[in-house]
Amino acid sequence: MSIAVDISVSLDGFVAGPNQSEETPLGEGGEQLHEWAYPLRTFEEMHGRSGGKTGVDDDVLAEGYESVGAVVMGRNMFGGGSGDWDPAWKGWWGDDPPFGTPVFVLTHHPRESLEMKGGTTFQFVTEGPDAALEGALAAAGEKDVLVAGGAEAIQGCLATGRVDEIQLHVTPLLLGGGARLFEGVGSDIDLEQVRAIGSSAVSHLKYRVLK
Amino acid sequence: MSIAVDISVSLDGFVAGPNQSEETPLGEGGEQLHEWAYPLRTFEEMHGRSGGKTGVDDDVLAEGYESVGAVVMGRNMFGGGSGDWDPAWKGWWGDDPPFGTPVFVLTHHPRESLEMKGGTTFQFVTEGPDAALEGALAAAGEKDVLVAGGAEAIQGCLATGRVDEIQLHVTPLLLGGGARLFEGVGSDIDLEQVRAIGSSAVSHLKYRVLK
Repeated sequence: MSIAVDISVSLDGFVAGPNQSEETPLGEGGEQLHEWAYPLRTFEEMHGRSGGKTGVDDDVLAEGYESVGAVVMGRNMFGGGSGDWDPAWKGWWGDDPPFGTPVFVLTHHPRESLEMKGGTTFQFVTEGPDAALEGALAAAGEKDVLVAGGAEAIQGCLATGRVDEIQLHVTPLLLGGGARLFEGVGSDIDLEQVRAIGSSAVSHLKYRVLK
Repeated sequence: MSIAVDISVSLDGFVAGPNQSEETPLGEGGEQLHEWAYPLRTFEEMHGRSGGKTGVDDDVLAEGYESVGAVVMGRNMFGGGSGDWDPAWKGWWGDDPPFGTPVFVLTHHPRESLEMKGGTTFQFVTEGPDAALEGALAAAGEKDVLVAGGAEAIQGCLATGRVDEIQLHVTPLLLGGGARLFEGVGSDIDLEQVRAIGSSAVSHLKYRVLK
């Protein structure tokens, strides 16, 4: 029943590289932010495959994945460009997305919900982050809400004061520009460190938001 | 014989808070960046006292401290304002500074070296980061060179291509503004993660710079 931000970030604080476009949605170099997860067993499992590496990174990924009952994301993360919706666009993840839960997409453009295979339902929220979090909490039941990105969606959710936890996967990467995670967030959020663990690929830093 | 950047940084990437001045040299809230170190045994030892906490944070602090044979820092870190030197200013650290090694201060204004108690000698380098690193390497002998800050001095040293290692002590703190560690550093530096460890106070992230 908690709300957690969970995202991969470069060492210089970006969650996407410079020059984001429809062709390079994560910006230049941004794909590298997520490379730590690709070899892991839980990542394979999320995509319906078997095999993959175990270890501390996989433990962290599995822990997050198992507790999630609903997801909140921004329109850029869902994709499909800006403006009115192209009804043919159903996200980056194919017919059977790896979420398996309701996903609340923040947008200024209304759209009917999309029911996908495997339990993922995309719902489009035009009333802002507070409404998206409210809907996600109700949908998650006993489980937790994951705020998955991008930067703007996370900033909007942090501003509601409802986020309980922030987990950052800090990658050994300098992007030099792009979407900065904490842009405009200010200094009013007080954090308590929960843990810092990692491998040779990534650091997992977890914080509790004090209220 | 390696050159290592070692500095405390906020979770949003600042090594000093907003509105730095002679009265608040670390900017608003910036003092909190270093609070993790104050209770530790090695910190007490560096300041000629006994007692203090042991544990992972102290291990990391001790490891860095023991290996250092010379220090490079920027003029802001040494203090004393800008422009021509006031000969009465001898740094923030009193007669017996906690370095115990030669310290090379980057400045545009020449000044005679200052020999302090306990082995600290402040030398003032007007020829830029490369010359400061060269002098520090020679002075360090078999030991390592620590690039201690601030942001601008670190950026200058990174630009020389001579830095071997970066260790960041990431504190659970949002400063919202100030001196950004990686400002203008770009994306051309390739890093390899050495380790990620931490306590409930701070995360220690160490990287090797690939050449």
